[in-house]
Amino acid sequence: MNPITPVPTEIPRTSSPLTQRTMRAVVKAQAGPGAEIREVPVPTVGAGELLLRVLRAGVCGTDLHIFEWDRWSQGRLRPPVTLGHEFVGEILALGPGVTEFRTGERVSCESHIVCNHCLACRTGNGHVCQNTKILGVDVDGGFAEYVTVPATNAWRAPASIPIQVAAVMEPLGNAVHTAFAGPLAACNIAVTGCGPIGLFAVGVARAAGAARVIASDVSPYRLDLARRMNADAVIDAAKEDFVTRVSEITDGRGLDGVLEMSGSPQAMRDGLAALRNGGRMSLLGLPKEPFELDWNRLVIFKGITLYGVIGRRMYDTWYQMDNLLGSGRLDIRPAITHVMPMEQFAEAIALLRSGSAGKVVLVPWGQSA
Amino acid sequence: MNPITPVPTEIPRTSSPLTQRTMRAVVKAQAGPGAEIREVPVPTVGAGELLLRVLRAGVCGTDLHIFEWDRWSQGRLRPPVTLGHEFVGEILALGPGVTEFRTGERVSCESHIVCNHCLACRTGNGHVCQNTKILGVDVDGGFAEYVTVPATNAWRAPASIPIQVAAVMEPLGNAVHTAFAGPLAACNIAVTGCGPIGLFAVGVARAAGAARVIASDVSPYRLDLARRMNADAVIDAAKEDFVTRVSEITDGRGLDGVLEMSGSPQAMRDGLAALRNGGRMSLLGLPKEPFELDWNRLVIFKGITLYGVIGRRMYDTWYQMDNLLGSGRLDIRPAITHVMPMEQFAEAIALLRSGSAGKVVLVPWGQSA
Amino acid sequence: MNPITPVPTEIPRTSSPLTQRTMRAVVKAQAGPGAEIREVPVPTVGAGELLLRVLRAGVCGTDLHIFEWDRWSQGRLRPPVTLGHEFVGEILALGPGVTEFRTGERVSCESHIVCNHCLACRTGNGHVCQNTKILGVDVDGGFAEYVTVPATNAWRAPASIPIQVAAVMEPLGNAVHTAFAGPLAACNIAVTGCGPIGLFAVGVARAAGAARVIASDVSPYRLDLARRMNADAVIDAAKEDFVTRVSEITDGRGLDGVLEMSGSPQAMRDGLAALRNGGRMSLLGLPKEPFELDWNRLVIFKGITLYGVIGRRMYDTWYQMDNLLGSGRLDIRPAITHVMPMEQFAEAIALLRSGSAGKVVLVPWGQSA
Amino acid sequence: MNPITPVPTEIPRTSSPLTQRTMRAVVKAQAGPGAEIREVPVPTVGAGELLLRVLRAGVCGTDLHIFEWDRWSQGRLRPPVTLGHEFVGEILALGPGVTEFRTGERVSCESHIVCNHCLACRTGNGHVCQNTKILGVDVDGGFAEYVTVPATNAWRAPASIPIQVAAVMEPLGNAVHTAFAGPLAACNIAVTGCGPIGLFAVGVARAAGAARVIASDVSPYRLDLARRMNADAVIDAAKEDFVTRVSEITDGRGLDGVLEMSGSPQAMRDGLAALRNGGRMSLLGLPKEPFELDWNRLVIFKGITLYGVIGRRMYDTWYQMDNLLGSGRLDIRPAITHVMPMEQFAEAIALLRSGSAGKVVLVPWGQSA
Repeated sequence: MNPITPVPTEIPRTSSPLTQRTMRAVVKAQAGPGAEIREVPVPTVGAGELLLRVLRAGVCGTDLHIFEWDRWSQGRLRPPVTLGHEFVGEILALGPGVTEFRTGERVSCESHIVCNHCLACRTGNGHVCQNTKILGVDVDGGFAEYVTVPATNAWRAPASIPIQVAAVMEPLGNAVHTAFAGPLAACNIAVTGCGPIGLFAVGVARAAGAARVIASDVSPYRLDLARRMNADAVIDAAKEDFVTRVSEITDGRGLDGVLEMSGSPQAMRDGLAALRNGGRMSLLGLPKEPFELDWNRLVIFKGITLYGVIGRRMYDTWYQMDNLLGSGRLDIRPAITHVMPMEQFAEAIALLRSGSAGKVVLVPWGQSA
Repeated sequence: MNPITPVPTEIPRTSSPLTQRTMRAVVKAQAGPGAEIREVPVPTVGAGELLLRVLRAGVCGTDLHIFEWDRWSQGRLRPPVTLGHEFVGEILALGPGVTEFRTGERVSCESHIVCNHCLACRTGNGHVCQNTKILGVDVDGGFAEYVTVPATNAWRAPASIPIQVAAVMEPLGNAVHTAFAGPLAACNIAVTGCGPIGLFAVGVARAAGAARVIASDVSPYRLDLARRMNADAVIDAAKEDFVTRVSEITDGRGLDGVLEMSGSPQAMRDGLAALRNGGRMSLLGLPKEPFELDWNRLVIFKGITLYGVIGRRMYDTWYQMDNLLGSGRLDIRPAITHVMPMEQFAEAIALLRSGSAGKVVLVPWGQSA
Repeated sequence: MNPITPVPTEIPRTSSPLTQRTMRAVVKAQAGPGAEIREVPVPTVGAGELLLRVLRAGVCGTDLHIFEWDRWSQGRLRPPVTLGHEFVGEILALGPGVTEFRTGERVSCESHIVCNHCLACRTGNGHVCQNTKILGVDVDGGFAEYVTVPATNAWRAPASIPIQVAAVMEPLGNAVHTAFAGPLAACNIAVTGCGPIGLFAVGVARAAGAARVIASDVSPYRLDLARRMNADAVIDAAKEDFVTRVSEITDGRGLDGVLEMSGSPQAMRDGLAALRNGGRMSLLGLPKEPFELDWNRLVIFKGITLYGVIGRRMYDTWYQMDNLLGSGRLDIRPAITHVMPMEQFAEAIALLRSGSAGKVVLVPWGQSA
Repeated sequence: MNPITPVPTEIPRTSSPLTQRTMRAVVKAQAGPGAEIREVPVPTVGAGELLLRVLRAGVCGTDLHIFEWDRWSQGRLRPPVTLGHEFVGEILALGPGVTEFRTGERVSCESHIVCNHCLACRTGNGHVCQNTKILGVDVDGGFAEYVTVPATNAWRAPASIPIQVAAVMEPLGNAVHTAFAGPLAACNIAVTGCGPIGLFAVGVARAAGAARVIASDVSPYRLDLARRMNADAVIDAAKEDFVTRVSEITDGRGLDGVLEMSGSPQAMRDGLAALRNGGRMSLLGLPKEPFELDWNRLVIFKGITLYGVIGRRMYDTWYQMDNLLGSGRLDIRPAITHVMPMEQFAEAIALLRSGSAGKVVLVPWGQSA
């Protein structure tokens, strides 16, 4: 054995290419409710990273939970952290080793920074990486003038994609992942829960050739948005019996698939009951707490397949979005109901809480909407 | 062991429920070119069968081959046989044991009568049954006033489906089987060969959410029909380089899938060359003779999946058609270019041979189009 | 429209080919606990049916439930009915229309008599037919000297398959369906619950190339049988922590798949916790009542696929069993712990209730074991 | 827009950690037949790379082609290049940024260095990356004392895996990829062509639960090795009719799958003819030149699926190998017929050319076998 000369295992981060040293950002500054707009340092750009000027950013239900400092947030966030995990930006600088992008390109971003070393990552299942860090949750995110992201997390969003759409490809990808987890074409599909991702899913299922897309919710406002996303039928689950209505709409055949977006135990039970035998339910909505199910009647005797959806297939889902949006087959703009200055982040959160919004998109400082 | 009383293993066929004893039909009367319109007995209806009044029937390229008495026909047909394997009819009578239909219902028919006993049949692969008999080829078919079919081969075609469409669900099912043999939604798909089934496939791929549907043929007439079926782009393979044009249309990405409908060696080679690595080609078109392929360059190094398509998935494909047509997502009427009296069968064959027709539908005697 | 001569829609059942008019059978004679050995008429053989001399029959947990007259039995059975849904027999006579079998052949039987007309049946999913009738539950079964079955439900069981194995291909098929519902080869698989079907599943997973097969139960007796079925490791869930032990056995990787055979809420939760992200759980065991699950932690965040298993794929599962048994890859005899006269049905039930048996096989009157 | 300070896009390669400056290697020194043992510089280790001491290396048919300087080699190689794309090594040093390995670990290596940026790479299909560079072909390989590889290409090969087995996981992965491209468990599988990868495939199919594994070749020597790999039956294709023999062995059912390892047109045609309808053929063997096929009879009418296999699924195949080898289910040692000093590379090539060898493994200078 020859003596070994040690080699460095760390590549130092370079300083920012900008002369500007600080920027404005929406920061979770401390453990507790709320968030602040602060002046923070412009991020540095490390090996394999991109420095982006943020162009637009979407507000997510998770941001509401973080703002309200719910139990999940308390267990996960380590303030201070800049929020924002849905955004599109323009590339300002390339970190060392990045060759596949050029400055000036517009990119939308995958929020999951995965380890690339665990079994899930090594076998094409990065969406369930055991060591995932999330932009805007675990590391600084895109509610800011600038952000750095791993180049692997960037996906070109050319000018043909409207900028507010490019801003929300991350949650759109949740909808695509959920919808594409089973057959859609020529199928009867229900989307249970019409928050922004549910609304996107209505559009995705339509674009992907579902025979009938049925949307359900308990909010007339959201059901109206579902109609604008071209749902073939909507069910007000507060007033109508879901299973009965589905049977009517499908001539008694039932559903081939359910895209569960509500996290509601009742929606899940109703969805399972309305599935035809052998159907599938894909679960994206997060229940608030454990709940019980009549497994025999709703799952086993019916030969149902259930699939838990987290994140986006990396990066199959992005390729699919690219094709859906680039071809014009999918238009999610009816579900984007508000565009407002990032400065008004608190108002955006209030709007979300009120339930009278679809997707809300923020415009950073110094840019016009 | 107790002595065994023998039991009958054959159920006698009943006589026809019609007072009419004979009917007109297009009959391959003898080994050799041509076909005749003849007066033949009205068929009897056996156990498990339906007696149908034929409402409309489609003419297929196979009928042309049979008319011309090509080598395949010589090896397969045993004249006399009534031709016609694509048709829709009204149920006049139910054979013994049939409980799932009522008289008066309108049904389209699967042409493959399968044995239900071979390994393929027993494992959900009836489309490759080793003992298949085909209506209008091996047993009397639907170019006639009446026809009997096994009840298992009938699929309800309600009034919401236009009658000329219901007539050609059999070849439409070829298109659906081919298209649905791999991913379609958000994919770049080419259909090589725009005969009637290719034209149907253009519509199917569009309805099933393909991002871009590219149709190729060497006939301007057929390419025009492809445009009317909403192809996103058409390629005249006689004048344009297929691979170059596909690359342009797909921004260099290539095809995710090819639906091969021409049987042309060049189309198949071009299709493989234009596929992205890891893509799929589904083969329905029948080459006239064996031909060679550069397996390494076109299949192995690219990680391609090839799938040979025969018939229709029994009866998944019919359920898919039902949903595609019933929901209005798919309209194949632009591909049905001619409706003519069954009496003019010879003219229909001439029309097909001329290449200046899409799908031709025939109207039996005593009915108006 | 011509006048229609009515045709019969019912084929009369023929009388039995046996001179013997009555036979002994285990009959659920009335609503309430218990079952009786009775003299009943030898069944007649209808169109499409086979008359079998029963050679061996397996006793199932369901028979125990029927004997004890649990809530499910009360809702489902309509006494009197001859019990027994697992059996092998010799063909004594063929009903009208049966051509694919000959007398003297030995056949094992699928217990689900499906309608062949519903959507599930028409699309290759007969195992979830909405109109299933079960031999020995809804119609007279195989705890008798003779039984009639639809010819479609018979599967040849040649002499190379031991007769007690041929008797229990129905429950073995449950194990195969469950195991084959996801990847097995090169996978880490756990079987939770080592009743007879769980024990069979251990053997099936081994034969199908699972890298490690881990069996769990709370009964040392059953765990010992699991060892004899060649489980690589066993976990006594009453004494050991399932998740910890799995982690040790799999070098921290977790399970690729769980075959849930216990119906125990704790087994299901533990199984989900021990699955690697992206793994699958196939559910055959029937929980006694609804129970709750932490969906977020155990299913959604992990990207798990759950599949409810009922019956056997018709007849893919039977083909798979045929190959597994015929090739000698699978030997389930260690799980068949008792062979006893059918006359001792009550003793067999008592044995099952005691928990000190694997699979129990019964020998009809007049035959030696 | 702020002025941008340029950042470096290249990370400089560090010098070797070894004091030793040169090493011996098998080098393709110039365009033309042959190869030389040369003294060359010890490679430097760049960012994300590992420096390995080579422990064992396998000789591949491709090395024979390179040695003989066939047309493919002439088009692809740019001498001088160190040969060798199958090897196992011990980690001597970690390049900058590598955190997932430690020095002293033993790793086997994936030979395909993929770009991680093309569509194939981004969607989990790195095996068909459009920009693949191959170790020992496009960049310096492992027929040397030392080699550098990207850390992403290394897979831990613990001491429980025999060192000569760890040396040939790359070609073993070809066999696993081919075999696992379709169903194996309970299937009748043929392996056509019993070179080293074919021999491995026999073992893999057995380990993965194939019901019957049939091996064919024209060399009695190789068929004997196939027997030692536990083929259930062997067919000498030079003397026996493949299709007839398969029919006998499978009781007339035919093959569920063919693993084509020979590149022989006759083997491919025979394999297709012997497949049951609906079966699959996975193609790894490279035909010497284009050849023709009767597509209708052999592929389309039979509903066959063909799949072109290149490389290994990255890294699903490695995980599968890990489990197959680590669990002891698979033992490929009977197929490794020779272990010889790397100094005798020319003799190893001669041995391969003679056809009287299975897999040949080389031992680098300064190590004992």
